[in-house]
Amino acid sequence: MMFEKIALIGIGLIGSSIARAVHQHGLAGSIAISTRKAETLAEARALGLGDSYTLDSAEAVRGADLVILCVPVGAYGAVMADIAQSLRPGAILSDVGSVKEHVVKVLAPLVPKDVSLIPGHPIAGTEYSGPAAGFAELFVGRWCVLTPGPEVAPQAVAKLRGFWQAIGSKVEIMDPGHHDMVLAITSHVPHLVAYNIVGTVADLEAATQSEVIKFSASGFRDFTRIAASDPVMWRDVFLTNRDAVLEMLGRFLEDLSVLQRAVRMSDGPALEAMFTRTRAIRRSIIDAGQETAIADFGRPHGAEAPAVAEVSENSAFVARADHGGGDDA
Amino acid sequence: MMFEKIALIGIGLIGSSIARAVHQHGLAGSIAISTRKAETLAEARALGLGDSYTLDSAEAVRGADLVILCVPVGAYGAVMADIAQSLRPGAILSDVGSVKEHVVKVLAPLVPKDVSLIPGHPIAGTEYSGPAAGFAELFVGRWCVLTPGPEVAPQAVAKLRGFWQAIGSKVEIMDPGHHDMVLAITSHVPHLVAYNIVGTVADLEAATQSEVIKFSASGFRDFTRIAASDPVMWRDVFLTNRDAVLEMLGRFLEDLSVLQRAVRMSDGPALEAMFTRTRAIRRSIIDAGQETAIADFGRPHGAEAPAVAEVSENSAFVARADHGGGDDA
Repeated sequence: MMFEKIALIGIGLIGSSIARAVHQHGLAGSIAISTRKAETLAEARALGLGDSYTLDSAEAVRGADLVILCVPVGAYGAVMADIAQSLRPGAILSDVGSVKEHVVKVLAPLVPKDVSLIPGHPIAGTEYSGPAAGFAELFVGRWCVLTPGPEVAPQAVAKLRGFWQAIGSKVEIMDPGHHDMVLAITSHVPHLVAYNIVGTVADLEAATQSEVIKFSASGFRDFTRIAASDPVMWRDVFLTNRDAVLEMLGRFLEDLSVLQRAVRMSDGPALEAMFTRTRAIRRSIIDAGQETAIADFGRPHGAEAPAVAEVSENSAFVARADHGGGDDA
Repeated sequence: MMFEKIALIGIGLIGSSIARAVHQHGLAGSIAISTRKAETLAEARALGLGDSYTLDSAEAVRGADLVILCVPVGAYGAVMADIAQSLRPGAILSDVGSVKEHVVKVLAPLVPKDVSLIPGHPIAGTEYSGPAAGFAELFVGRWCVLTPGPEVAPQAVAKLRGFWQAIGSKVEIMDPGHHDMVLAITSHVPHLVAYNIVGTVADLEAATQSEVIKFSASGFRDFTRIAASDPVMWRDVFLTNRDAVLEMLGRFLEDLSVLQRAVRMSDGPALEAMFTRTRAIRRSIIDAGQETAIADFGRPHGAEAPAVAEVSENSAFVARADHGGGDDA
């Protein structure tokens, strides 16, 4: 047992995956779960994700030696105002948000002196949201970034590192600003671009749109997965990592202008050169164990492919506008 | 048996998948395979994909009642010059290229009067190339677009439709220009954008690039799959569908400017509204049976996830600059 009591504030995809992983590895004496919406709390209870359930986040954190915020980043200020006075001396306060500099700015001034603030970001997720979407293996083989300030005791950092390793993650310590720049290009700009191209399709006339859906296996459907991620979580990412996103989006747009010009000028050699160099990056990702080498992501083909009727039943998206979980791949 | 002899010119991902499917369903008396490179031909022979193998495409098409061009679109002119005089009267000439108006323009003037030109485009593929990458189930449940001109006999169209249906496809008849516009937004622009973002990453300084690879599960890796597709095939797509690509890319860029401005102005409601409407499109694609509803494309997580060493062995990309197959999803 690593912690006496873990409090999870927010129980979406990430929070519920942490809860399941903690259970599976027996890492805590008890898990307290708090959400803002009664409905989400009832769902977590029905799934048996914790040992206690409350709408009062201050009650959840009382006596907890590890508190993890698993709500959209935009809700951190309100949550922190509620819990600051109830944090246990010596506790570790962490989170799973996709931006880190803003999180430090919001949380640090409110954290009591005897509490260790160690912001965190597990680089893992799926396109689904809500308590039912989580699973214990979500973090296995994935990276978790921690961004402790210089004032945090090394023992506290070591303890939280051990926790993430125990549930299968590899851990990297980073500066919050550098984290935000790296994630802007690996995550935030790709999501923006994916949302954008799906939006462009949504604006096509209805007849063409139905053809786009039919013929989506030609590339488009890959983009729709990340564009199905939790809208509130992503709104907050762009509101809180604006500068890094605009910087990386600027680079992306410059490059796209060059490519657009090559298309307009029918510059075959430039296009072929561009399309050739990008293969090496994917190979590196596969070699690093961060992607499967199976063709087409291992999507089912032929007889394994689900029939249309069968798929429809499983395709309900859980849109959750309050506690949508902290991250989404 | 549907055809006496099928000639496949080019035996990459798509050609070799057709060969396997034809064998599996017993649709042809014999399959003749022709490639430009001896090496590729030897590979096809070793895989037992056909009944005869030749570097001379004219020899391959002699006596064939169905000829399918499975080479990059840029090679069509040269292939057609070689085979035109050897096509059997009454034969159907088709292809699997990702653009259709250009194909008609190049092929139609060279097709003998007694041969039916029915351009085709199976909307199916993976990111891998070459004869070994194909499999018989590739076309099951996927759409195949045929774009016959008004001069083609309905019986010939019905026969080719029946062929694609026999190997599992659903068939749609379209105008070539309309096909090119729909594919520009479902396939060509998504590929351009994916190549572009992977290119932006390739230009980052080396230290950041290694972090991008580590943290690629946050969104970026989805883009790398389609950016690993055959470079020559894609060069030809952009050279031959320029106008439709520039039109759809223009729309995409206008929309991206709006989104960029919303980020710059910290317009939360606009961002959330944009990120919410895109979910419905993915649901439609899943409901249409063109995508799996399994989280994260069903990528392996946890214990199922391949170890790094194991993956490395399977991660060889077959770069094939001549006969790369006709399409790639």
